[in-house]
Amino acid sequence: MNAAILSELRAAVQDDIRLSVAPEDLAAYAYDGTWAETAPAVVVHPDSSEQTAAVLRVAHARRIPVVPRGSGTGLAGGSLPVPGAICLNLARMNRIIEISRGDSLAIAQPGVVTQDLQQAVEKLGLFYPPDPASSYQCTLGGNVATNAGGPRCLKYGVTSDYVLGLTVCLPGGAIMRLGGRTIKNVTGYNLSQLIVGSEGTLGVVTEIVLRLIPRPDAERTALATFSRMADACAAVGAMLSAGIVPLLAELMDRATIRAVEEFRSFGLPTDVEALLLIAVDGDPALAQSAIDSAADILRGAGARDVRLSRSSEESDALGEARRSVSPAIARLAPHKLGEDVAVPRSRIPEMVARLQDIARENALDIVVYGHIGDGNLHPTLLCDRRDNAVMRRVERAAGQMLEAAVALGGTLSGEHGIGVFKRDYMRLACDSEALRRMAAVKRVFDPHGIMNPGKKLPEEIEKGAE
Amino acid sequence: MNAAILSELRAAVQDDIRLSVAPEDLAAYAYDGTWAETAPAVVVHPDSSEQTAAVLRVAHARRIPVVPRGSGTGLAGGSLPVPGAICLNLARMNRIIEISRGDSLAIAQPGVVTQDLQQAVEKLGLFYPPDPASSYQCTLGGNVATNAGGPRCLKYGVTSDYVLGLTVCLPGGAIMRLGGRTIKNVTGYNLSQLIVGSEGTLGVVTEIVLRLIPRPDAERTALATFSRMADACAAVGAMLSAGIVPLLAELMDRATIRAVEEFRSFGLPTDVEALLLIAVDGDPALAQSAIDSAADILRGAGARDVRLSRSSEESDALGEARRSVSPAIARLAPHKLGEDVAVPRSRIPEMVARLQDIARENALDIVVYGHIGDGNLHPTLLCDRRDNAVMRRVERAAGQMLEAAVALGGTLSGEHGIGVFKRDYMRLACDSEALRRMAAVKRVFDPHGIMNPGKKLPEEIEKGAE
Repeated sequence: MNAAILSELRAAVQDDIRLSVAPEDLAAYAYDGTWAETAPAVVVHPDSSEQTAAVLRVAHARRIPVVPRGSGTGLAGGSLPVPGAICLNLARMNRIIEISRGDSLAIAQPGVVTQDLQQAVEKLGLFYPPDPASSYQCTLGGNVATNAGGPRCLKYGVTSDYVLGLTVCLPGGAIMRLGGRTIKNVTGYNLSQLIVGSEGTLGVVTEIVLRLIPRPDAERTALATFSRMADACAAVGAMLSAGIVPLLAELMDRATIRAVEEFRSFGLPTDVEALLLIAVDGDPALAQSAIDSAADILRGAGARDVRLSRSSEESDALGEARRSVSPAIARLAPHKLGEDVAVPRSRIPEMVARLQDIARENALDIVVYGHIGDGNLHPTLLCDRRDNAVMRRVERAAGQMLEAAVALGGTLSGEHGIGVFKRDYMRLACDSEALRRMAAVKRVFDPHGIMNPGKKLPEEIEKGAE
Repeated sequence: MNAAILSELRAAVQDDIRLSVAPEDLAAYAYDGTWAETAPAVVVHPDSSEQTAAVLRVAHARRIPVVPRGSGTGLAGGSLPVPGAICLNLARMNRIIEISRGDSLAIAQPGVVTQDLQQAVEKLGLFYPPDPASSYQCTLGGNVATNAGGPRCLKYGVTSDYVLGLTVCLPGGAIMRLGGRTIKNVTGYNLSQLIVGSEGTLGVVTEIVLRLIPRPDAERTALATFSRMADACAAVGAMLSAGIVPLLAELMDRATIRAVEEFRSFGLPTDVEALLLIAVDGDPALAQSAIDSAADILRGAGARDVRLSRSSEESDALGEARRSVSPAIARLAPHKLGEDVAVPRSRIPEMVARLQDIARENALDIVVYGHIGDGNLHPTLLCDRRDNAVMRRVERAAGQMLEAAVALGGTLSGEHGIGVFKRDYMRLACDSEALRRMAAVKRVFDPHGIMNPGKKLPEEIEKGAE
């Protein structure tokens, strides 16, 4: 990056320590939660909306790509730098500005770690439900960018359901304020919800107003194992039909159970086809009675064994099996490709069967787990990046999974985003008229295409945007 | 409207009975739920997405304004025709296409009456929560256009929280399909949520995929009266802080209580400052225990009297007092202007006090009621349109109410929309950068500005869009 531009960027952040060009710094911001790596040309660490806007003014004028970044835990390559890019590191903007009990909301900067906000509001008897698996390290800005979900989103909805207002810095340096402190608001177009899930391709979110709800008193969990996968799927449908909306309904297939059991001995049977983890929350007596009803339904649907928690502590202990999935899988192979397909709930059994076929056809090992209650599965392909033949099969299998999801009325991503890895599949899932309008909407905010280029929209659609 | 254009429109709907130019037909589509009236040039009644798109192709080419319309119950003038316009009557597109228990969703045309959908899904044990006061006659298309709410939205969220997918016909004749059948979906920008609440200014929604939830088993209600308004407001805050999220929390001020009591003798005390109607729903035993806790909180907060339901039928009977508000108010004066301000929950007492000041300063009668739980009030000014002096004061008072809401961190409309009546106040509530981008987003979908012109965006902002 040339010296004149660097000097403009330095002026934008008003401080030399907020800009890094040292190779070791560029390397430190070259990755995300995937196995891909690309070093940016410069890393800038703004600490306010004004500084962020000033950086975007320079980038817009100089036509330099900008890639916003929180903690880099994304699983679709959305925060992965592109060559020559400014990596806009928002991790220093990590202040919780306000928590209001009276208005049941929090205002936070994008670099706040999700779990830090959750713990801060829970101390006040409030609750912020979205709980991506990486909540101990991911940031709210990244959650907004991807419209992050998590297990609890079955009952409580995803990030977008909690965003009341946003401050967004735009290419050219404008600062746009959207929404506000009210729960209901139909004043103007809902640009907040357009920004949520846009993966940093429209602008940079620098302040977030989040709705909070009262903290539930208690949680109860049932862990059930099934000889047959189809019975586990049917059990979740039966539960919802009976009017029980669990806090979460998580599925693990046999390969996942075995990995978890090898990782830590929970005493899970490794000869079953499926494990369901069901949790309910609310008033302690009610949660107990709801989990008892859920257990009856699980048994009626053919569960081989049902373990029940009798306290929030026991509930937490049973949940540990689910939380162990990621580290347990990480031990199985040098690398993994974690997918994020979503299908209509009724098509889950077909999708699971199709996933197993795809793994077999491509001679790959697959573990399947995910949020069965809302049809969002994370089939994970085990692999070794150094083996080119395997990686070609992994790529083919990943494409087949996306095709299968769409064929069942589903979509490419439930909560991870499109990033770089799925953009070539967007035509599978999106109407071409909608894609053209998305590109034109991008142009409204980012006429020169500097915001996170090469992400979200298919290449030829994005190119049409310049 | 000239004969050539009429003949193109007739060809678009392929049937002469789907187009009316008779003066009596034009008069029948000249009004909405407000007191304003403007006859369109022609009324067209399409019965499919294809016919709607064909009408929009003609209108786009000929630069003729198009005003989409459901049952015309809107309260902001959003579906009011403009001179020379095509009134696009969607009421004939009233088919429920599918109700899926397995996927917990419904697919419906825009002309389906909200209550018809609710009753159809409730028969299957499912629930569609949004319940605008006009649900017995308003349509789902109108609900999507305004992002309609209602009392139950405190617990369950508004229309946007239930929209999974939309089919939208655009100026020029394109048909755009957005979203789909999955609960989670981050594939592409969320254009569905941009369309929701856009009041027919971007395109015409012709098919709606709505998420459904399990039908709650039981409902319990508490009706409490308070000598002091401030105590009633504090009671709702205390309830939410205690972790009770009621189905609804409705407020009526003294003028509203008196109107209701004169309309039908419920035995309400007419010397109190405020009435709160609190309902909870869910499992019968739990709902009973929650309403008992709510009643304790109401008493603790200073309620003079608390009536409690012991069954869903009794709950329904207590709710009748709230449902009588609209007809009761209608008897008080020849006309009324019903406002729809929203403020952060903690500012409700200040807002109520300010509303009473505004009424007094302008020598007007006002009744105040609304959804106190989410900060959305419907202060209603009583008036007689034939009295010009009064109407000038009504206009001034309405402006002062909007200014007061914004000064308290609130906004112009919680659920009715902006329409024609509030567009001139948009600059009060919206950042100018956001307004400019909204106009540019409108241009993406409607480059010639034919879709419902003169609505939603301020005039000079909208004019910039041509």
